[in-house]
Amino acid sequence: MTETTTVRLVKRPSGMVTPDCFAIAPEPVRAPGDGEITVKVAFVSLDPAMRGWMVDRKSYIPPIGIGEIMRAGIVGQVTASNAPQFAVGDTVTGWGGVAQHFTGPAMLFTKVDPDVAPLERLIGGLGMPGMTAYFGLLEVGAMQPGETVVVSGASGAVGAVVGQIARIRGGTVIGIAGGAEKCRYCVDELGFDACIDYKTENVDQRLGELIPQGLDVYFDNVGGEILEAALNHLKMKARVVICGAISIYNSTDVPPGPRNYLNLLVQSARMEGFVVTTYAHRAGEAVAEMAGWMHDGKLHFREDVQVGIERFPEVFNMLFTGKNFGKLVLKVN
Amino acid sequence: MTETTTVRLVKRPSGMVTPDCFAIAPEPVRAPGDGEITVKVAFVSLDPAMRGWMVDRKSYIPPIGIGEIMRAGIVGQVTASNAPQFAVGDTVTGWGGVAQHFTGPAMLFTKVDPDVAPLERLIGGLGMPGMTAYFGLLEVGAMQPGETVVVSGASGAVGAVVGQIARIRGGTVIGIAGGAEKCRYCVDELGFDACIDYKTENVDQRLGELIPQGLDVYFDNVGGEILEAALNHLKMKARVVICGAISIYNSTDVPPGPRNYLNLLVQSARMEGFVVTTYAHRAGEAVAEMAGWMHDGKLHFREDVQVGIERFPEVFNMLFTGKNFGKLVLKVN
Repeated sequence: MTETTTVRLVKRPSGMVTPDCFAIAPEPVRAPGDGEITVKVAFVSLDPAMRGWMVDRKSYIPPIGIGEIMRAGIVGQVTASNAPQFAVGDTVTGWGGVAQHFTGPAMLFTKVDPDVAPLERLIGGLGMPGMTAYFGLLEVGAMQPGETVVVSGASGAVGAVVGQIARIRGGTVIGIAGGAEKCRYCVDELGFDACIDYKTENVDQRLGELIPQGLDVYFDNVGGEILEAALNHLKMKARVVICGAISIYNSTDVPPGPRNYLNLLVQSARMEGFVVTTYAHRAGEAVAEMAGWMHDGKLHFREDVQVGIERFPEVFNMLFTGKNFGKLVLKVN
Repeated sequence: MTETTTVRLVKRPSGMVTPDCFAIAPEPVRAPGDGEITVKVAFVSLDPAMRGWMVDRKSYIPPIGIGEIMRAGIVGQVTASNAPQFAVGDTVTGWGGVAQHFTGPAMLFTKVDPDVAPLERLIGGLGMPGMTAYFGLLEVGAMQPGETVVVSGASGAVGAVVGQIARIRGGTVIGIAGGAEKCRYCVDELGFDACIDYKTENVDQRLGELIPQGLDVYFDNVGGEILEAALNHLKMKARVVICGAISIYNSTDVPPGPRNYLNLLVQSARMEGFVVTTYAHRAGEAVAEMAGWMHDGKLHFREDVQVGIERFPEVFNMLFTGKNFGKLVLKVN
């Protein structure tokens, strides 16, 4: 194998990504330089945060440069190693790119056990999105047993795990998701106490009916009007965890912030953002506990596997139209 | 004395308060009921938060009812007591109302030493506004020595104390105030490192010039565009203390929230509100430390004393037009 298909960012998107933002073409596989490895990619993780990396602005990681391979979480097998910690044949996850083969610094990868779970789950519920849910709820949100937790994007890669962990930890959980099928999944399969369908229900009103006592933790994946609705239902000392804002990532103008942010004052509440990489040094602890819950049948995952690297732009947009159902991954080989 | 002038709320304001929102008239002094005291009011504290109490909505304390005396912090002398903990002649501060004599529950009052400071200061820098600054900066903001603190409303009752405490605790302090004279006061008399005049300077740009490294704590008294500007200069793990939003209290529509609140995510920062009454049980600790700093010449206060209870509506509006300079109090006897 000397050629591999890669997805390179060639134009910064405005609004939803369009196929012309990317060059998708075969190119030679680059041999690993000093301290690098080459990974044959099994699955690419598709996450809302990737939309932010396409924008040329200062953020928690540098933007993707024009002409660079589109950055993404990947899982696959090492096919060439120029780094002592990895051998050919190792299964690894890490910061790679949308490519059939990816060559990059070994320090961005972690060796994983391919028998723990299906490979795609190692970049999903047991990977970055799972860690995001775990540390966001328990550390940033400081959720305590018996508390009331509301989570948006409830059937998504992060939200589904947030809600299940909150249940495992003895909380009452209300999900917010788009569509009857996703809501049914949250309640019937994941064990949420209730789920609000934002496409057909008034979220603010339904929260008032379901949890008249208010919420202790709101885990926000969506921003916009749903964030505002949740801010109307804060208990004293409530914590709002800002994980993402999928509703505004494709906005071409900057939408208004939450008009009712002063509810934070009235309720002595806080709103806090985080980036999961802050907790990278504690990933082992989270994976061990979550894998345990999975094997005990308490934690369920659902992956939405799409096939074909050339479909990247179309499949990526499913995140924003709500067409995916479960953790979205792209099978590229 | 059987008659006293009181200010009663008779109409809820829309926008700035107008004289017809209040009935200002003499009425008989009410004798204290069981557990009540009557206070001859020396000074009434005028605070931005009072505007919020005039609105009929759920908040951290109930709204003032139509026909009720306008709630306010007061300082004065007990003239009649039906409560064992107070004697006639005691000097007290507490939750009273805009009145020459106020009769109310003894539990809303605290006995104070009139020799510690001028009486008006006991409802200012050494009263609620001082406590708000102290606990807001040190507890909610968790300010640490050497950190960079930005405070809006910098020459006001709360802001001036926030900035000085931050300096005393070894921080770098940038104020934001309206007008050259207030800025000069913050720098030359209070020892701030710098002060931005939001009336003539671009706050966002000036923050970038003055503190290119960013801020650790932003103490917000004003909301609106200045809050947005500050959110553009967060360091990692910065804390935004939401104390008030004087810029929007008189808005007749709900202004947009901070459009850039996702900077909290990017910087793993938090935005937290509070109400000073949460810390009422620790007031003694704060007053003792602040009085010590005052006597050591490290903490300076400035009161803006206006005279005449009948001027209440006009004087209250000075808070929102920026015409007051220092802690605004009304002398009513």
